[in-house]
Amino acid sequence: MSKNLEITYLIDFYGDVLTEKQRDVLEQYYNEDLSLAEIAQNSGISRQGVRDAVKRGEGVLLDLEAKIGFVKRYRGLQGNIAELKSLAKNIAFCNANGYSVSDEIARDASRMTEIIKELEE
Amino acid sequence: MSKNLEITYLIDFYGDVLTEKQRDVLEQYYNEDLSLAEIAQNSGISRQGVRDAVKRGEGVLLDLEAKIGFVKRYRGLQGNIAELKSLAKNIAFCNANGYSVSDEIARDASRMTEIIKELEE
Repeated sequence: MSKNLEITYLIDFYGDVLTEKQRDVLEQYYNEDLSLAEIAQNSGISRQGVRDAVKRGEGVLLDLEAKIGFVKRYRGLQGNIAELKSLAKNIAFCNANGYSVSDEIARDASRMTEIIKELEE
Repeated sequence: MSKNLEITYLIDFYGDVLTEKQRDVLEQYYNEDLSLAEIAQNSGISRQGVRDAVKRGEGVLLDLEAKIGFVKRYRGLQGNIAELKSLAKNIAFCNANGYSVSDEIARDASRMTEIIKELEE
C-alpha cells in the first residue's frame, strides 16, 4: 500500500466528515507519517484493522472530492491569486517609478495586496 | 414547513452527495418551487414521503456545510473579488487620466480584470 499524498489535502478540506476513528487513523498515517504497524500499536487495533480504516477513510475523501470538487477549485484559485499578487506589486512599482506618481494608484495597489493576502490564508 | 432559501445554494455545492431521490425532490421543491403535494403527484410517492425526503436531504446538506464550510468560504471570496474588481477599474481610470500614462500599468490592470472575471465564474 503506497501513501497517496493528495490525501493530506483532502483531510484538511473534508476531514470533519470522517468518523473519529477514520480521521484519527488517517492523520497518524498521513500527517504524522506513521506506519500501519505503529498506528496499530498506538490505537490497540490490529494492523489489518488500521489498513481497512485507512482505505475506507481514503474512499470517503476521494468520493467527496469527486462530487464536490472543493480542492480542485481551491487550487485553481491559488494560481489566479498568485498572478494577481505579482500584478499588484508591479503596478505599485511602475507607479512609484513613473514621471508622475499617483497617490491613488499607490493606495489602490496597496489595498489590493492586503485583500490578496487575506485570500491566501 | 417553510422553505429555507439557503438550501438552494447548498444544492449547487453539495447536491452530488445526495441520493438521487433526495436530490430530485429537493430540486423540485427549491429550484422549481413546487409544493409538497405537487412533487408527490409527480413522483408517485405520498406527500409525507416527499416531506421526509426533503427534510433528510436538507439535513445532509446543512451537515456537510457545517463540516466543510465551502459555501461560507466561497461567499467571503466573492466579497473580496468584488473589491479587487473595483480597485483594478480605478487604477486603470487613474492611469488613463494621469499626467504621464504608463502602458505597463494599463496592461497589468487589464490582465487583473481578466483574472477577476475568471474568479467570478
